[in-house]
Amino acid sequence: MRATVFHATRDVRVETVPDPAILAPTDAIVRVVNAAICGSDLWFYRGINEWQPGWRTGHEYTGVVEAVGAEVTGVKPGDFVIAPFSFSDGSCEFCDEGLFTSCPHLGFWGGSGGNDGGQGEFVRVPYADAVLVVVPADVAAQPEKRAALLALTDVMGTGYHGALSAGAAPGRIVAVIGDGAVGLCAVQSAKLLGAQRIIAIGHHAGRLQIARDFGATDVVDSAAPDAAASVVELTKGGAHSVVEAVGNQDTMDFATTIVRSGGKICFVGVPATIKTIDFTRLFMDNVSVRGGIAPVRGYIPRLLDDLAANRIDPAAVFSLRLPLAQSPEGYAAMDERRAIKVILDVGTA
Amino acid sequence: MRATVFHATRDVRVETVPDPAILAPTDAIVRVVNAAICGSDLWFYRGINEWQPGWRTGHEYTGVVEAVGAEVTGVKPGDFVIAPFSFSDGSCEFCDEGLFTSCPHLGFWGGSGGNDGGQGEFVRVPYADAVLVVVPADVAAQPEKRAALLALTDVMGTGYHGALSAGAAPGRIVAVIGDGAVGLCAVQSAKLLGAQRIIAIGHHAGRLQIARDFGATDVVDSAAPDAAASVVELTKGGAHSVVEAVGNQDTMDFATTIVRSGGKICFVGVPATIKTIDFTRLFMDNVSVRGGIAPVRGYIPRLLDDLAANRIDPAAVFSLRLPLAQSPEGYAAMDERRAIKVILDVGTA
Repeated sequence: MRATVFHATRDVRVETVPDPAILAPTDAIVRVVNAAICGSDLWFYRGINEWQPGWRTGHEYTGVVEAVGAEVTGVKPGDFVIAPFSFSDGSCEFCDEGLFTSCPHLGFWGGSGGNDGGQGEFVRVPYADAVLVVVPADVAAQPEKRAALLALTDVMGTGYHGALSAGAAPGRIVAVIGDGAVGLCAVQSAKLLGAQRIIAIGHHAGRLQIARDFGATDVVDSAAPDAAASVVELTKGGAHSVVEAVGNQDTMDFATTIVRSGGKICFVGVPATIKTIDFTRLFMDNVSVRGGIAPVRGYIPRLLDDLAANRIDPAAVFSLRLPLAQSPEGYAAMDERRAIKVILDVGTA
Repeated sequence: MRATVFHATRDVRVETVPDPAILAPTDAIVRVVNAAICGSDLWFYRGINEWQPGWRTGHEYTGVVEAVGAEVTGVKPGDFVIAPFSFSDGSCEFCDEGLFTSCPHLGFWGGSGGNDGGQGEFVRVPYADAVLVVVPADVAAQPEKRAALLALTDVMGTGYHGALSAGAAPGRIVAVIGDGAVGLCAVQSAKLLGAQRIIAIGHHAGRLQIARDFGATDVVDSAAPDAAASVVELTKGGAHSVVEAVGNQDTMDFATTIVRSGGKICFVGVPATIKTIDFTRLFMDNVSVRGGIAPVRGYIPRLLDDLAANRIDPAAVFSLRLPLAQSPEGYAAMDERRAIKVILDVGTA
């Protein structure tokens, strides 16, 4: 099969690699229909994460089940499925409580684990019953919904996790820091959760327009002088819920400034450069802060219902569409900030 | 009246000061029956906080209402009352939601605000209706309950806040770091909240015995090698709820090590020396961390019911009883760790 493979910093290639096969009776093989390039893929692309040549890339994909192992009962060949960005066993204490990302058998697509990546024609899926979510046939049959379905694999689930964990709900003021795909999805999630007021904070006019389209009631330019103070003033004391969707020290400091007393901050980006937080603010005003990595698997069923009923449509986070063969160009476009997020057409449904 | 007054580091004195008077129609004057010396009083006593000579001391007291302003309707002369360690207006957004400590009119007894301290014969109480909680006459009539009532002014409410905010509940494993008065009260609160297992972590054998008496199912010596690892092993993966009742970097690091994936840490001590936290742990395992200062006023009614019904009795946190005149000796005893916490007999009920 053809798949995207890492070679070196800013060097990924689409190559022929071995076709995957069922290795365990709980496996499935999925033929990929769409894959995405994620902002977090830029870490290895830019050489920030140490990757080895030959590792497969991509952790966001949708597709059609091609084959299943003997013990798989929840999906069957021909099903259109969504995979979350990580896999887990579905039977441990943490999976039982919805914290799939703390599963002792947690694994990721591509990378160091030796698993297939999503940016290729086929993927072997461990724990298929626990991992894959079947898309109803009538929804799968609508090509115009494919991009939105792809967003459920990661960015929409991550944005939803951020908004939910930060307490977005009717009557609450939600602020989202960051206008990347996850931030935009957090805005749409806050609207889905019924937030009264949603403030999108970023510095790309085009992305902030998408934020408005996604439900933001206010947008704030993060580069403006006193941007944080203006959010506090706008909200008469700060936001009840803050989603920190960037992961830098500056944006975390912004979050602790604009959160309302008694409020919650959820940070959903890897906190690689965050060194500290204003503990005195947390203490004096009973602010809570929480990571982190989104247990997306648990959110896909509800988001799929919302997508089918047109209550959400995150497709606009994809600003560039390419065939699998051009995935290297997709990486370059994201690296150079020419695209918010890239969708790859890999196969037919 | 006689009251304890700060003079200099390790120099507090009981002196004659002006009697307080009603200044606003919402004030009350309380004649103090008992006052406590708090671990946090040691900050100014030891010169860590900059205090001015003449400032009054003490923020924990119970007493009898002596006089009320024209607009006070909730308490009347003769009522035995409990005051929380801070006062608030009772009518703002934050008081309405129970976050009394974020009230814009928040104030503290004694110290820089020029208010009367609790360690004296009388206290002028602003916003009396919103601040004071009346103790039922039958409970107030039991001298053996006076120490427990005094604990509700701060340490028991703070321990309860920590346990509640960290998610203590039936089926949950709660770990409490710190065997001071607040930590011990957090243990008792975790038991009150129905926690399945309660692990007290400290290094004073006598205090850990009180923790057992208060409901700890396990005690761990924090000075033992691999103490944190032993808690993780004991709990097969960590505690769902961690109350950090010390406030140092070491103890915060201990907390992030022993918290279970998906769990909550609440830190209830002023985080003066905490500089950082393991953000990667928070992220990868969806751990939440929250301050802080306890909105004790909101907890007093329920804790008073529990105390009256003998479901709680935090009196054992007081290990030394002295008359008001000897409050300087009480400070010295706490400073030298000869006492966990001191109760002062100030007046008769």
